[in-house]
Amino acid sequence: MSNQTETVSIPTNLAKRFAAVRLFTEQICETLQAEDCCIQSMPDASPIRWHLAHTTWFFETFLLKADPSYRVFDDHYEVLFNSYYNAVGEQFPRALRGMLSRPTVAQVYDYRHKVDQCVADWFTNGRIEADPQLARVVELGLNHEQQHQELILTDVKHLFSLNPLLPTFRTGTQPSTTNVTSECDWIDFEEGQHRIGNAGEGFSYDNESPLHRVFLESFAIASRPVTSGEFLKFITDDGYSRPEYWLSEGWRQVQDRGWRHPQYWYQECGEWQEFTLAGLRLLDPSAPVAHVSYFEADAYARWAGARLPTEAEWEVAAEEVPIEGNFADSLLAAGQAIHPSSRIDEKGPLDHLFGDVWEWTASQYTAYPGYQPPPGALGEYNGKFMCNQFVLRGGSCATSSDHIRRTYRNFFPPEARWQFSGFRLAR
Amino acid sequence: MSNQTETVSIPTNLAKRFAAVRLFTEQICETLQAEDCCIQSMPDASPIRWHLAHTTWFFETFLLKADPSYRVFDDHYEVLFNSYYNAVGEQFPRALRGMLSRPTVAQVYDYRHKVDQCVADWFTNGRIEADPQLARVVELGLNHEQQHQELILTDVKHLFSLNPLLPTFRTGTQPSTTNVTSECDWIDFEEGQHRIGNAGEGFSYDNESPLHRVFLESFAIASRPVTSGEFLKFITDDGYSRPEYWLSEGWRQVQDRGWRHPQYWYQECGEWQEFTLAGLRLLDPSAPVAHVSYFEADAYARWAGARLPTEAEWEVAAEEVPIEGNFADSLLAAGQAIHPSSRIDEKGPLDHLFGDVWEWTASQYTAYPGYQPPPGALGEYNGKFMCNQFVLRGGSCATSSDHIRRTYRNFFPPEARWQFSGFRLAR
Amino acid sequence: MSNQTETVSIPTNLAKRFAAVRLFTEQICETLQAEDCCIQSMPDASPIRWHLAHTTWFFETFLLKADPSYRVFDDHYEVLFNSYYNAVGEQFPRALRGMLSRPTVAQVYDYRHKVDQCVADWFTNGRIEADPQLARVVELGLNHEQQHQELILTDVKHLFSLNPLLPTFRTGTQPSTTNVTSECDWIDFEEGQHRIGNAGEGFSYDNESPLHRVFLESFAIASRPVTSGEFLKFITDDGYSRPEYWLSEGWRQVQDRGWRHPQYWYQECGEWQEFTLAGLRLLDPSAPVAHVSYFEADAYARWAGARLPTEAEWEVAAEEVPIEGNFADSLLAAGQAIHPSSRIDEKGPLDHLFGDVWEWTASQYTAYPGYQPPPGALGEYNGKFMCNQFVLRGGSCATSSDHIRRTYRNFFPPEARWQFSGFRLAR
Amino acid sequence: MSNQTETVSIPTNLAKRFAAVRLFTEQICETLQAEDCCIQSMPDASPIRWHLAHTTWFFETFLLKADPSYRVFDDHYEVLFNSYYNAVGEQFPRALRGMLSRPTVAQVYDYRHKVDQCVADWFTNGRIEADPQLARVVELGLNHEQQHQELILTDVKHLFSLNPLLPTFRTGTQPSTTNVTSECDWIDFEEGQHRIGNAGEGFSYDNESPLHRVFLESFAIASRPVTSGEFLKFITDDGYSRPEYWLSEGWRQVQDRGWRHPQYWYQECGEWQEFTLAGLRLLDPSAPVAHVSYFEADAYARWAGARLPTEAEWEVAAEEVPIEGNFADSLLAAGQAIHPSSRIDEKGPLDHLFGDVWEWTASQYTAYPGYQPPPGALGEYNGKFMCNQFVLRGGSCATSSDHIRRTYRNFFPPEARWQFSGFRLAR
Repeated sequence: MSNQTETVSIPTNLAKRFAAVRLFTEQICETLQAEDCCIQSMPDASPIRWHLAHTTWFFETFLLKADPSYRVFDDHYEVLFNSYYNAVGEQFPRALRGMLSRPTVAQVYDYRHKVDQCVADWFTNGRIEADPQLARVVELGLNHEQQHQELILTDVKHLFSLNPLLPTFRTGTQPSTTNVTSECDWIDFEEGQHRIGNAGEGFSYDNESPLHRVFLESFAIASRPVTSGEFLKFITDDGYSRPEYWLSEGWRQVQDRGWRHPQYWYQECGEWQEFTLAGLRLLDPSAPVAHVSYFEADAYARWAGARLPTEAEWEVAAEEVPIEGNFADSLLAAGQAIHPSSRIDEKGPLDHLFGDVWEWTASQYTAYPGYQPPPGALGEYNGKFMCNQFVLRGGSCATSSDHIRRTYRNFFPPEARWQFSGFRLAR
Repeated sequence: MSNQTETVSIPTNLAKRFAAVRLFTEQICETLQAEDCCIQSMPDASPIRWHLAHTTWFFETFLLKADPSYRVFDDHYEVLFNSYYNAVGEQFPRALRGMLSRPTVAQVYDYRHKVDQCVADWFTNGRIEADPQLARVVELGLNHEQQHQELILTDVKHLFSLNPLLPTFRTGTQPSTTNVTSECDWIDFEEGQHRIGNAGEGFSYDNESPLHRVFLESFAIASRPVTSGEFLKFITDDGYSRPEYWLSEGWRQVQDRGWRHPQYWYQECGEWQEFTLAGLRLLDPSAPVAHVSYFEADAYARWAGARLPTEAEWEVAAEEVPIEGNFADSLLAAGQAIHPSSRIDEKGPLDHLFGDVWEWTASQYTAYPGYQPPPGALGEYNGKFMCNQFVLRGGSCATSSDHIRRTYRNFFPPEARWQFSGFRLAR
Repeated sequence: MSNQTETVSIPTNLAKRFAAVRLFTEQICETLQAEDCCIQSMPDASPIRWHLAHTTWFFETFLLKADPSYRVFDDHYEVLFNSYYNAVGEQFPRALRGMLSRPTVAQVYDYRHKVDQCVADWFTNGRIEADPQLARVVELGLNHEQQHQELILTDVKHLFSLNPLLPTFRTGTQPSTTNVTSECDWIDFEEGQHRIGNAGEGFSYDNESPLHRVFLESFAIASRPVTSGEFLKFITDDGYSRPEYWLSEGWRQVQDRGWRHPQYWYQECGEWQEFTLAGLRLLDPSAPVAHVSYFEADAYARWAGARLPTEAEWEVAAEEVPIEGNFADSLLAAGQAIHPSSRIDEKGPLDHLFGDVWEWTASQYTAYPGYQPPPGALGEYNGKFMCNQFVLRGGSCATSSDHIRRTYRNFFPPEARWQFSGFRLAR
Repeated sequence: MSNQTETVSIPTNLAKRFAAVRLFTEQICETLQAEDCCIQSMPDASPIRWHLAHTTWFFETFLLKADPSYRVFDDHYEVLFNSYYNAVGEQFPRALRGMLSRPTVAQVYDYRHKVDQCVADWFTNGRIEADPQLARVVELGLNHEQQHQELILTDVKHLFSLNPLLPTFRTGTQPSTTNVTSECDWIDFEEGQHRIGNAGEGFSYDNESPLHRVFLESFAIASRPVTSGEFLKFITDDGYSRPEYWLSEGWRQVQDRGWRHPQYWYQECGEWQEFTLAGLRLLDPSAPVAHVSYFEADAYARWAGARLPTEAEWEVAAEEVPIEGNFADSLLAAGQAIHPSSRIDEKGPLDHLFGDVWEWTASQYTAYPGYQPPPGALGEYNGKFMCNQFVLRGGSCATSSDHIRRTYRNFFPPEARWQFSGFRLAR
């Protein structure tokens, strides 16, 4: 009975959710000009138009093409907007995504709307209701789109930061700062065996499974992330000039790239500012530090006589913490800047665990014991990146609140800084 | 008396010419979308918007700023749109011109129109009439803009060629081909002493001066450029695989870049096509070959048992030839494709000497004896590039007819192929 | 009592061991010409002379300089032969080690002998006996030297492989192959909690500590490594052309580097050969495959429907296995080629676990819970490399038999192939 | 009659000259260790052993192989020691010449001596006497070897300069400096027509032919090269920081390579030193400046209000000047350092025109009118490099005195600095 109810109700909610997530992408982009949408500011980033098209391509490729009679919007798009799915076919080279001036942004919006209409029709005519596999693809497509929403925000921030005009993505009010980031405490956890990973309720990515057992020695974790003000002390203590704090590869990056502070920080007349999606601002010392690489997080931890938590420790620590915080959807709805904030709403032993900044863990991204990627092209979603990346946890101010989970494993190479990436300490 | 008349009449014509040249730039761009205007498709090319802004910056910097009370349109533009004038100040790095999404194309058009209005006012209120140096700057600025009109055409062609959608810049009728490229004859010239360079009548660039004497041994020059059909024979004779025809550096480029044919040629099902500003077309074997590097021109000449003419030989050969041919302005006015054509209007011993394709010469670009660049920033216009470049002569189908001269010295590195560059033989 | 005996006896054994290990380095090099010793064949490799000097520098820097009255052999050597110890001071750039023709090889041998004499004196005069910390440094220095002995072998193999003359390092008899590599079985292990890491008896590196608990789900491990013959089946099944088997980064390497088979394999007239330290040989299909990257090991495993073991699984599986196999010291003593062999001496459920080839594990190289690097420069020995590397276990045919342990953690980047690296499967 | 005499006498002298030139190569190398001979310190340089082998390969390939019964020394050498002769066959990649440790230096000397013996036999048995074409190949081979003698000196200087030990190639006495470099005068030449190039008497390279007519406007040339002391004034006047003096490409090199002074200059405690083949020395301000690129020469000239002479001007100016100066053979014989010197022996209007430093001219290296490379592989000797190089004239302290001519055209890319390259001014 309940199962049947569920089968009926999921597509209904899913249809609403589909409309909402797709709309939110366009809301995020509504202040962008055509010019903002076609430049690739670095190989790691993509043109905004590409994100708009690729997320649409995802539904066309994995959902609509399940119907052999479906006629694609444009034959070229299969290659142009395929990110990395070798099983689907050839891909236009990633590093050249910024070389394409056509299709225009307007044409890509047409593409979106045509595909949206098709999917809506499939909801209306019961096709998705009838096939749980299709519903699963829609759910995956929506989570996929939410990941690209975050990338749109971080990619446009990177693009704007290269421009001497320092364009503003969207002005935003400063949140009231009545409750600023608290003192940092150590929260202790006893040694013992734990279950880690997703138990299979609700949507999760393949890389969060299977649920498995780990043994953790006792550990302590910081009650909140390291703040910009704390990170400044590392800088003024010459942290960027002292190799003893750095991994060998990190020290090489510091030399090669000339890192002296987190990305987007600027020092003018002795005063620290940071470039945000709402423009250049005075640095808020009580907000979580963001836009640091794994190497900087790790070096800070060593300087501070601590270390980063493993992802298992983080997940155990998060067990009782409600998923609340500063997220992209709420910030945008409230007209506030999409930026980490010192504001805290929750009250518990652990602050800012969700939202604000992704937290680097000490864990290299690898398969859980018994991990199996799904068959077919969608098996390429996560598994093939398990190499030379570190796990981040908890979501950021650019993440949607209904996208994050306790078991969610985000991953980036240790030198990546353009995400809203921060960290908390452990010992 | 005549002098005074001249002083009066020049600015009047100049004002008209200013309006016409500036308008022609916008006419060229009228089929382009905003997206087409902000991408830099390779380091040698610039975003179209950059050309639109830089040509305007030229008038603002070298003309309008002569008035200390002039207020610039935007303080950032001095750096953003300076190409290479160190004497003016810092330049935004050339290789990063494609990283700027702002100012938008619309803002750049505003910039153009504001500066156009100012210059028009200076014509109206007699300020330019009163100062021959200002008139000279305007004349230089217009020639400068005409050079960038040609670059707009070649840069957008390169950009579109990277796109699997193969966008069409502007459809164009095929010219009637009643008079196709003639048989190739050798035109003989006796040994002797000649005067080369500009005698100082009318506008010319500094690098065309001074007029000077050279001694030329006897030589013969081909009556017309090498055609695509002739170049095909070099290809089918394995010309790209036989090192004996190539300069050492050219052979390296052939290996490194995998050159097997001129740029923009494609072979499909045994049939040769070329990508043009009017889209993909069957190759016309009787039209002058275009988009070859100096290395390919030189290798072809060696294969054909001939050589390229020196620039002095070319200039001597051109002495009696009228400046007629297929140029950007006439082609656009006639609704024809901007592409080299086998059509010939002139009748004389030498065909296609002007227009259609720039002709590589065997001369490395160097200073004429007694050459002096002008003082100040404008001295950087030509002189500082006299190294590792070869001279091309005669203009192309992307050149304006009133821009070219017999003494005109264009120059590009020997590996450049994205210009409409061809060649004729000598011996 | 026993403690005192131990304090007395260790230096005695240590002195003998010091002499033996230092001598073995020279024995390895005795067939090399001066020319073979000064070339750096790739950034990952070092000139042999550099290894000879650096291992000597290690004793000079960390042992002899403990005596303030010690006079260094040459002031320049502190910088020239420092590998990566920032706490000691500046280092001559690693990538330029091959740019140095001086000191000559003969001068470096002088340096070795002078330092050897000093250390011998310190043994004789009781100085090392008197200070356990000095004895620990000697022990570390000898293990360090043994690691460089292995690098000498792999670096000279790489150097010779670039030379069309295909020089032979040292001819060697083929081992009798009565007992060839057995059939491959799966050995099962139950789920449960285990202790991993070094318990502190005898020498071990810091990265093997501390002993800690892990929980392992049940697993099975292959009874022997994958052989060259098995790997050939992967090749003939187009394994190098099918992206579905590869990590994304591995697939990129396959494309960029054109990998089609393990390093040092050559196919001639349909016959597979491999370049060995004893020259070019027919491929032995029953010997463990060597010179594969992590990416190739991982792709093979996926193709075979299996996976690589984690380092904890490997260590648990090795618990009862005697440390026997084909090692550099025994092979050299027996006049046999330093190359993985199909010969097996042991009889147990697990073959070739030690010696022959290092075995890639699925574990990225990271700190054990509670890991602390030692204070000072020697803290840079291992800890700062815990990033973007994978753990290998078991030693190879280029390792000395008294150098390897069950808990030994070797580590290399996943694209490294010039080590004797192979793998066994798990599931 | 005289012809016959000539045919007889040439081989006799040639045999002596062959022995002498070949010996001189070994004399130059006699202080070098095996280690010094196998490193390639940059792509433009070659290992010394490669020079020793390649010059021998030249005689083997172009002379001895003319006899079909000749058996080569080693089959691999045809590829290993071919520099750039595509008509001969494949070449071992230039950039990898330093990756070869074998053949050893001793084996290469064996190769030299075996080939020397063969050629000596051919002289003895009259084979060369009988065939003028063979004599011409020997003559070319000797000139070729002399060019490589100079490269041996400049390549070993570059190699040693990278070594913190700063090895000394050969100590040398300082020449007595009674007659130091004179005041600089301007020597005037009238406008007029001149004959340039080689008239065909005695040996010359193909690129010096044919003799042809040029018209030169009047010019003046400096009586001596610019000295190190004069160049220092350019440095202290911030010459390396002022873009107005530099070609655009030169300015880019200054930025990219951080040039602040000529190569091999070092400033310590305010005192300028230069690294020479005889070790580190105080800079001699009255000696000709050496180791500057074309860009530096050209920038200095612009700073000084002058220019560089064209090669035609240089050749006209040299018409009456005796070929005397500081050359490699005399310096070595006298036990003096191979380094530009302020000493002058000649007395005439033009000093130091020959020897000491090669002089950059303003002429890009190109074909003389009517130039024809010889047929076959030897046609690749000079002609295929006529691109992106500038002509230098007059020989240096590393040139042999019997190698240089008034019509001799040396050529290097404008950024090259490792040759003994200086310049004199013109206007």
